[in-house]
Amino acid sequence: MISLTTDFDDFYVGQIKGIIYKINPEAKIIDITHKIRRQSIYEALYVISNSYRYFPKNTVHIVVVDPGVGSNRDPIMIEQKDHIFIGPDNGIFSLMEGDIYKIMTDVLFNKLLKYGIQNISNTFHGRDIFAPAAALLDKGERDFLEEKSHKVILDLKRDIKKDSISASVLFVDIFGNVILNIKKEDINTDQIELSNIKLPILNNYEEGKSHELIALFSSSGHLEISKYLGSANSTLNVKAGDTLLIKFR
Amino acid sequence: MISLTTDFDDFYVGQIKGIIYKINPEAKIIDITHKIRRQSIYEALYVISNSYRYFPKNTVHIVVVDPGVGSNRDPIMIEQKDHIFIGPDNGIFSLMEGDIYKIMTDVLFNKLLKYGIQNISNTFHGRDIFAPAAALLDKGERDFLEEKSHKVILDLKRDIKKDSISASVLFVDIFGNVILNIKKEDINTDQIELSNIKLPILNNYEEGKSHELIALFSSSGHLEISKYLGSANSTLNVKAGDTLLIKFR
Amino acid sequence: MISLTTDFDDFYVGQIKGIIYKINPEAKIIDITHKIRRQSIYEALYVISNSYRYFPKNTVHIVVVDPGVGSNRDPIMIEQKDHIFIGPDNGIFSLMEGDIYKIMTDVLFNKLLKYGIQNISNTFHGRDIFAPAAALLDKGERDFLEEKSHKVILDLKRDIKKDSISASVLFVDIFGNVILNIKKEDINTDQIELSNIKLPILNNYEEGKSHELIALFSSSGHLEISKYLGSANSTLNVKAGDTLLIKFR
Repeated sequence: MISLTTDFDDFYVGQIKGIIYKINPEAKIIDITHKIRRQSIYEALYVISNSYRYFPKNTVHIVVVDPGVGSNRDPIMIEQKDHIFIGPDNGIFSLMEGDIYKIMTDVLFNKLLKYGIQNISNTFHGRDIFAPAAALLDKGERDFLEEKSHKVILDLKRDIKKDSISASVLFVDIFGNVILNIKKEDINTDQIELSNIKLPILNNYEEGKSHELIALFSSSGHLEISKYLGSANSTLNVKAGDTLLIKFR
Repeated sequence: MISLTTDFDDFYVGQIKGIIYKINPEAKIIDITHKIRRQSIYEALYVISNSYRYFPKNTVHIVVVDPGVGSNRDPIMIEQKDHIFIGPDNGIFSLMEGDIYKIMTDVLFNKLLKYGIQNISNTFHGRDIFAPAAALLDKGERDFLEEKSHKVILDLKRDIKKDSISASVLFVDIFGNVILNIKKEDINTDQIELSNIKLPILNNYEEGKSHELIALFSSSGHLEISKYLGSANSTLNVKAGDTLLIKFR
Repeated sequence: MISLTTDFDDFYVGQIKGIIYKINPEAKIIDITHKIRRQSIYEALYVISNSYRYFPKNTVHIVVVDPGVGSNRDPIMIEQKDHIFIGPDNGIFSLMEGDIYKIMTDVLFNKLLKYGIQNISNTFHGRDIFAPAAALLDKGERDFLEEKSHKVILDLKRDIKKDSISASVLFVDIFGNVILNIKKEDINTDQIELSNIKLPILNNYEEGKSHELIALFSSSGHLEISKYLGSANSTLNVKAGDTLLIKFR
């Protein structure tokens, strides 16, 4: 099984799928999302690290949010015990553990000739490098990899003080829910304060009917700022990678 | 076969698919749409009732538009002769006939342990209840259901008078076409009036080239207000669940 | 394999998939995109002509951008050596070579009765004609076709002069990149001028960090106007089918 996470909800996705089937007609391809905020490495990082475990063992996860495509960042593969991750080495795999490999593109391209694939572009490595690499890995071929000692890691903030936590925004979802880098064990209160607004920590959205904003623990286990039948981010206006200060009182 | 209809075109869909494959690796999953207007139970109701019959027999249809997730609405299953429907009991299945069952979540969660699935959230029953239930039903397992005598039903208006019909808006599509709860047999005229605009009832969009707005019968058989190469809803500005008054003259 | 390219990212896509599986349960359906700019025949033309070759041989490609649905344009099929294309005869297949066939809808509809499919609409031939025709072709059935001598062809401009090229916009992608009907061999310079802005022709987006706009050769081999981490089309404000004048200096 091959999963796809990208920021380009356009025909580019169709080309990626076509290439995979050309190399590996038995592939099973699942979209995680193509709605990552454009060029937001932070959003991709959150989505893949919180979604991969819902997939069967041995899934190959392609993640492409790649503003530096064609420049000198490496194409990499991360191998965990049960899952494989492929994408650019720009921080999208900051939260993934496991062995790191670099994709040797010249070896890869050479292998692709027998499938009638050539003409590699400088602007679409999703189609020209990551998809073919995933298709081959899904078939068990891995002779285009070489070990690599480290990967790029983005910093996610979670600065816990007595009366406050300063934490990174991890994701803003389609409903305008804002997900923060704060876990249940970091907080010991049932009310927080954010931008001078007091928010109760509730169990579900509907309990927040009469509040401007509420907080709850999201389906990924992180603190989430929400608004019942509305968008919390219309008020907060933040994006993944920003920092918010949460006060306790 | 399992179909999906939701209002969250985001990575949440990918997690749902992953879970289904984890439980039922042979599943065939088809997206109906994830573009339901956010939290519009009316739109979901229209889409599923007009789409399920295009699917093969025995398809399990997951429908999740669920502003009350985590509150006390029941997770339910409706069984027709040839199709099964799963979702929250909030009115999305108003137009579906068939036997009604409640999903016994404690029995379900217990069954999921053997797939390594736990940690159920209060905010994402699509992933944590409906998807696993559908995956099991698609495999023929149904020991987590108990009969239920009734379901929530939303009221759709179709008030036919001598010179007018007052009817609910069923759906506004991506082109801005406005679909009404009026069928061909309800109307015996070739011109209607709406908000003081006269609309001819035509056979196809192109015939309406020179008109501000036109009416025709949509692919679901309902009266549809349209604008050739434009959006009728830019003029009407309505949403599913609203009521429109159509006059005959 | 059946691919889908449309301008209706809505539940209509789900109905198309359902119908295909009803006729051909073994079908493998791949979305190329449903994000074609609404009713832009030019965008569809670009997408299909630059995407089909990434798919396995014998793929049946459904392309539906169809403002004239229900009027007198023909439903057609184009057969290349390795690929089949199905859609309305309105110019979307301008760049496809191969034999042209008209779909005889009365023969087709008659064949569909045995699958329990009737009630053909005037507003959704994607579901009612093109999808069933593709499902049957994918199974090798083709007795609903008759030869046709010509198809509608849209004009794409590429007017090469000594100091300039006047060329059609082919596509504007989700990042705001503007793709032009100009190939590498048409240009012999490393700087162009567009609307009084000077643009370097670079190898990748990141090289353009410090420029307002840049040009490079897109993954389809065409000249592309871009902006690093931004949208070139916020500046240019064009759409597929428009003409741009590129000057050399």
